[in-house]
Amino acid sequence: MWLHVSCKLVFDIEIATPFILMLRPRSGAQQWVESDEFKISPNVPIIEYTDGYGNLSQRLVAPPGKFSIYTNANVKTSELLDVAFGAPFVEIQNLPDDILCYLLPSRYCESDRFNDLAMSITTNLLPGYNQVAAIEDWLRNTISFIPGSSDFPISATEVNYKQSGVCRDLAHLGIALCRSLSIPARMVVGYLYQLEPMDMHAWFEAYVGGRWYTFDATQSGPKGGYVAVGYGLDAADVAVFNQFGPAVFPTEQMITVEQINN
Amino acid sequence: MWLHVSCKLVFDIEIATPFILMLRPRSGAQQWVESDEFKISPNVPIIEYTDGYGNLSQRLVAPPGKFSIYTNANVKTSELLDVAFGAPFVEIQNLPDDILCYLLPSRYCESDRFNDLAMSITTNLLPGYNQVAAIEDWLRNTISFIPGSSDFPISATEVNYKQSGVCRDLAHLGIALCRSLSIPARMVVGYLYQLEPMDMHAWFEAYVGGRWYTFDATQSGPKGGYVAVGYGLDAADVAVFNQFGPAVFPTEQMITVEQINN
Amino acid sequence: MWLHVSCKLVFDIEIATPFILMLRPRSGAQQWVESDEFKISPNVPIIEYTDGYGNLSQRLVAPPGKFSIYTNANVKTSELLDVAFGAPFVEIQNLPDDILCYLLPSRYCESDRFNDLAMSITTNLLPGYNQVAAIEDWLRNTISFIPGSSDFPISATEVNYKQSGVCRDLAHLGIALCRSLSIPARMVVGYLYQLEPMDMHAWFEAYVGGRWYTFDATQSGPKGGYVAVGYGLDAADVAVFNQFGPAVFPTEQMITVEQINN
Amino acid sequence: MWLHVSCKLVFDIEIATPFILMLRPRSGAQQWVESDEFKISPNVPIIEYTDGYGNLSQRLVAPPGKFSIYTNANVKTSELLDVAFGAPFVEIQNLPDDILCYLLPSRYCESDRFNDLAMSITTNLLPGYNQVAAIEDWLRNTISFIPGSSDFPISATEVNYKQSGVCRDLAHLGIALCRSLSIPARMVVGYLYQLEPMDMHAWFEAYVGGRWYTFDATQSGPKGGYVAVGYGLDAADVAVFNQFGPAVFPTEQMITVEQINN
Repeated sequence: MWLHVSCKLVFDIEIATPFILMLRPRSGAQQWVESDEFKISPNVPIIEYTDGYGNLSQRLVAPPGKFSIYTNANVKTSELLDVAFGAPFVEIQNLPDDILCYLLPSRYCESDRFNDLAMSITTNLLPGYNQVAAIEDWLRNTISFIPGSSDFPISATEVNYKQSGVCRDLAHLGIALCRSLSIPARMVVGYLYQLEPMDMHAWFEAYVGGRWYTFDATQSGPKGGYVAVGYGLDAADVAVFNQFGPAVFPTEQMITVEQINN
Repeated sequence: MWLHVSCKLVFDIEIATPFILMLRPRSGAQQWVESDEFKISPNVPIIEYTDGYGNLSQRLVAPPGKFSIYTNANVKTSELLDVAFGAPFVEIQNLPDDILCYLLPSRYCESDRFNDLAMSITTNLLPGYNQVAAIEDWLRNTISFIPGSSDFPISATEVNYKQSGVCRDLAHLGIALCRSLSIPARMVVGYLYQLEPMDMHAWFEAYVGGRWYTFDATQSGPKGGYVAVGYGLDAADVAVFNQFGPAVFPTEQMITVEQINN
Repeated sequence: MWLHVSCKLVFDIEIATPFILMLRPRSGAQQWVESDEFKISPNVPIIEYTDGYGNLSQRLVAPPGKFSIYTNANVKTSELLDVAFGAPFVEIQNLPDDILCYLLPSRYCESDRFNDLAMSITTNLLPGYNQVAAIEDWLRNTISFIPGSSDFPISATEVNYKQSGVCRDLAHLGIALCRSLSIPARMVVGYLYQLEPMDMHAWFEAYVGGRWYTFDATQSGPKGGYVAVGYGLDAADVAVFNQFGPAVFPTEQMITVEQINN
Repeated sequence: MWLHVSCKLVFDIEIATPFILMLRPRSGAQQWVESDEFKISPNVPIIEYTDGYGNLSQRLVAPPGKFSIYTNANVKTSELLDVAFGAPFVEIQNLPDDILCYLLPSRYCESDRFNDLAMSITTNLLPGYNQVAAIEDWLRNTISFIPGSSDFPISATEVNYKQSGVCRDLAHLGIALCRSLSIPARMVVGYLYQLEPMDMHAWFEAYVGGRWYTFDATQSGPKGGYVAVGYGLDAADVAVFNQFGPAVFPTEQMITVEQINN
């Protein structure tokens, strides 16, 4: 299916503020970006680079006053998620080198503390996809998904204690559980078609059966329509914007995802 | 200045043909790509990757029949080229690691055979920018620039023997001469505003005074308006399209570069 | 100064166990590895790769039975650490792209929670080296360094609560404090000449004044003799060994660091 | 089998001369470097980096006077080369991204000019390994291997015209022929056990059946004992030493390869 996605952010800047942005989707194995636009106003110098996870990032210094960022893209993505019950666990010695980092604990995914819970959720299951699917189900049934309930990232341990969270929180806990079983898992931030309420979204991917599969405990069924804009170990790596100096927050934020014919 | 650039290629394919394309400009130190579009018809699967020189490349298999590629972008670039007489030669030991490869001879730039000529062109000049500027002048005065006179790349040695060539040929000879003086030099393919006749263009960059400078012996004066789509050692690395199997040639090719307000 | 460093690890393996090792020092800006040796017994297949932080890592599957790893190297390193009071804070917009990741919070360095403490430690100080030196002093005076007091990594928050820790713990807290001031900081694991008691060691580096400087709150004065074997965001990235499956611990561990003439 | 390899180079330097060296073997899929030593005298500063092909390279400035480099290593490598008649040609669309560069023509391998010859050598053969084996045989039977007959690299076209050459020359022609058939091929420089006369050696690898295979038209049979020190497109990328400024040549050069028990 083809989607037109857009994100508008407006800030009220008091002092010149360095920003690092991650709002430009890239083409990859799971999506094709046919066109994209990235506008800032006022038109300050902007430098684009590729980060260690392959994400396109933009660096700029926002000047005092109103500062706006508007990005949009036309992207081809799958209408249905791939489902692969039975896809096997990949033995550590057979994982590609560049996948190994997704086994490590990270800021918001303390996988070194979740082995017991992960074992209890996945008892007697075939190692691999089935374990991840069970983790996703457990999240769906156990952790209340409450959009808008959190302003800043908390860690998997904190999410598990609260038993509720935003999409990012459920993803963090899912990732921590997967990694504690030695299944590589990573955070994805992006857009989702028909998300309610519409916003930027977060989900996770797990590496089983020789490839990445998408999991999202905030949704049900294999409905697709995902457009990734950033990949990383967790929310620390895939902030839509990182801003330095005194905190500034968007005074306006507008996300759209529409199906188009192409 | 802001430019709208576009390239349309149409092929008549007889048997399924793998392509590697390099037609998507990236943002970098010298240009900012605000928007871009990359359309193919029919809509076969396409995979994008970043090559060893940082270029965005697309892989696909064109099916039999009419196959078209249409790309365009809005890009901010300089109206005037930076000129820096006196910018010094960078000692080998001070070159960044990732610049060193641009000292080596390559397929179409046999820099190992051009030291005598380069020395004679640059006698008594301050090492660095002034040498490259002298090489550019020498090319402009010595090698006849005849657009459309060549269908496939020839090497600097062959260009020097012919004493004439297309833009690519002059760039190859310029690069070979620079490298023979231990000045890193690289090929650039892209668009140029007001190029006559309009076409994809090729020029070269030399690394002096701690950064890359643009040189183009086919033009006069420091007129800018360059939009890079690919960087490499020479034309072998920056073919706008690489096609495998029985040769196919575009049945239609349309390039545009227009100034826009933004 | 020249150092001969060695590490011997012996394990008693019950079931075939995948390992990822990080025990091979590399040459870099701060050290030159003239020779090195990496022996395992029994001689199972071993694959070496470079991780995302540039570390040489080795992958293997240890078979059941006694399994030993022995590595050693002759390394040239500085006798005294560089000290640079006054070296300035690098503005975010001027940091090299590949340094930016060292600003982010990580598993054991929750820098997003330490801004108040960091501000109070560095009140009125010139931004940059002086702030990091104050953080190092504060660690030295506040957090009791108790070698051998911990078996597994705890996070900066936990270290600050305990007010004591091993070298790794002090480094984690130092890194979290630096990053909370937008100073890039990274973990280093390696050898230290005359460390008491001798063991693998951990310290941190901060990026100020355009380069990395070494800091170590467990030592006093600018004494050098450091040999790095791994760099990363924190201990999650630079485990000397990562082992998968049921936990195994060394039954023997022997570290040596001796000064040599070369 | 285990080999102890060593290379000693001595230069008589007149003016301070920048060098880039490639004499340090790395562990990889085909060899394991258990120990290595890299000594220079006098002991000037030396910086090691990894080039775009993954080779360890060293940069230094040799001071006036006698300058020597001595490297050695203990390496585990195969006693017999893998032979895989029938291993299939990999379709372009299925080649890994980072293999694609080995399809391109390069300085000493003008593969864009060898398609007719390659077709005639491989008529009616199964695409893939069998074609490369036929090319190797053709080289062995057609191009006289004359060690020591050349001081500097010449290109495949020149080798084919001369009908004789050193190991490097045969490798260049072999690579050009493979690439002209869209088979990725790369140059390897290193050591070979029982090479006569003993010297640094060059051979090539071709990518068929999903992996790299070794080919060496200067030897007969599947005898192994190869230790790679550098990989690249051709000799331009894998010079054991690159030196800048007025040419200097080794006044002494000593290569050894001995089998050891380990």
